Amino acid sequence: MKASKSESTEGIKSPLNIVREVYDNLPFNRLLGLKVEFLEIDRAGFIFSMNNDLIGNTAHGILHGGVISSVLDTTGGLTATASAMERKQDLAKDEIAKWIARVGTIDLRVDYLRPGKGSQFHSIGTVMRTGRKVAVTRMELSNQENILIAVGTGTYIVG
Amino acid sequence: MKASKSESTEGIKSPLNIVREVYDNLPFNRLLGLKVEFLEIDRAGFIFSMNNDLIGNTAHGILHGGVISSVLDTTGGLTATASAMERKQDLAKDEIAKWIARVGTIDLRVDYLRPGKGSQFHSIGTVMRTGRKVAVTRMELSNQENILIAVGTGTYIVG
Amino acid sequence: MKASKSESTEGIKSPLNIVREVYDNLPFNRLLGLKVEFLEIDRAGFIFSMNNDLIGNTAHGILHGGVISSVLDTTGGLTATASAMERKQDLAKDEIAKWIARVGTIDLRVDYLRPGKGSQFHSIGTVMRTGRKVAVTRMELSNQENILIAVGTGTYIVG
Amino acid sequence: MKASKSESTEGIKSPLNIVREVYDNLPFNRLLGLKVEFLEIDRAGFIFSMNNDLIGNTAHGILHGGVISSVLDTTGGLTATASAMERKQDLAKDEIAKWIARVGTIDLRVDYLRPGKGSQFHSIGTVMRTGRKVAVTRMELSNQENILIAVGTGTYIVG
Repeated sequence: MKASKSESTEGIKSPLNIVREVYDNLPFNRLLGLKVEFLEIDRAGFIFSMNNDLIGNTAHGILHGGVISSVLDTTGGLTATASAMERKQDLAKDEIAKWIARVGTIDLRVDYLRPGKGSQFHSIGTVMRTGRKVAVTRMELSNQENILIAVGTGTYIVG
Repeated sequence: MKASKSESTEGIKSPLNIVREVYDNLPFNRLLGLKVEFLEIDRAGFIFSMNNDLIGNTAHGILHGGVISSVLDTTGGLTATASAMERKQDLAKDEIAKWIARVGTIDLRVDYLRPGKGSQFHSIGTVMRTGRKVAVTRMELSNQENILIAVGTGTYIVG
Repeated sequence: MKASKSESTEGIKSPLNIVREVYDNLPFNRLLGLKVEFLEIDRAGFIFSMNNDLIGNTAHGILHGGVISSVLDTTGGLTATASAMERKQDLAKDEIAKWIARVGTIDLRVDYLRPGKGSQFHSIGTVMRTGRKVAVTRMELSNQENILIAVGTGTYIVG
Repeated sequence: MKASKSESTEGIKSPLNIVREVYDNLPFNRLLGLKVEFLEIDRAGFIFSMNNDLIGNTAHGILHGGVISSVLDTTGGLTATASAMERKQDLAKDEIAKWIARVGTIDLRVDYLRPGKGSQFHSIGTVMRTGRKVAVTRMELSNQENILIAVGTGTYIVG
């Protein structure tokens, strides 16, 4: 999965890179074809391409509502994890991985604004509230023409 | 899937059976391994099995939050469609299929109650409100031991 | 309720002014002290002042969560009504009033971001989706220092 | 706030009674006319009567959507507080009051099912999930004929 060259610099892998690696390798994220596009302390996003398996409406060839809710949920999780990272800087690498595995969605709201048409999609998550226990994030999904398809809000346990 | 005997009576296929067939064959539902388990005018449910692709947390081997939101969304869609079927009885078969393709989620809320552990999962959707334009449904996801994993509420355009 | 002077210009009262008048005079909006601050075809807002009756936490002197959800709900309703007004321009004045009375909230989500501290509060609603049947709006509540206290999303029947 | 007579039996006041007293005396709950009807460790409810100030739709004489969201929010808060009380049994009385003041809504979802018609209304909250940091509750509002008017879900900080 990783070339030996990057392995050799593992010691200096930043905590955010550990988060990225975890999310890129979640089995269901791989099934959907999601790839972390960018990751900062207060915003993060995925990119993925349309393919036949992601269709929910054969007549119209658009994304299944579940693909949209999945991408928004994992975008919020990625964002919430990154936002809480600042308080975890002192942890050892394997403790960071354990902590990431404990981050979980408490609840999710998705608003479907337009049909999920497009060839490539981008999600963006931003932090609305972050604390010692809970982070709240807002997420958006757009297609390659920047047409907004859905928005959402997620609440995550990060403590 | 269907015995040849029922095939021969296709001409009299009930509207609910058309709905079932559509949902069993949505590409993303097939990717998740979802199968309509039961379908009535005011309640409906899917069944599916755990598999490696559905995992969201490698450390704990549990369902990805997106799988859960996907199943709840499509369960609500199935339930809302069935509930609105009564008003569509007079439509011809292909008009019914066209109408089903227009049913869409307006918004979805998911509450994640317990980790998605299990070997087989069942969803149930019930109708909370149905009208000429909009249906609201409540959904639940449990595992093979009837442990409740998540609940949700969805609002659907059915007009 | 209205001075005779304004009565005399009733004939030229714009549809948006009818909407404003309805919302300013909803009994519960009056109880809360809400006043429409601005009203356009795609955005609208209320203004109100802190008073002792609106407190939900005596120890900290902050707005009750219910005041916040109430203001966001009615802000979304005002915004949704205005956004659907374009399609109602040909209605007579009393038919407009009847239609306004039929606009209703389907569902509401509120995210409480910070304690409701302040002396004066402003809400803003914007349209995220509007159609013949349903409008979806996003709402924000801030205090006199533009500190964001809560955000929300509402889905409204406007058909 | 309390007469000296009740003061004298203070020593035996149960923690749940302290919670009840706090909620009965929240200024905004008093404005709405809410009274705690019952309060147990895993369920709780309010009762209140229709009055003109609570109306949101003069044409139809029904409850304002904000009254409904307010009652559901405070019902969830009451339920979440009671559910977390078990872990606070050892606290002194004034520490309990301080802790109650820190319980707060993170987010709220309300589904409006039927017009808020009636002379008297009851709310019920039940616990769906409770932990050291967060509690999730489900709430219902019905009228005196047990007609269900609205349901909701709330997520509360209880840590």
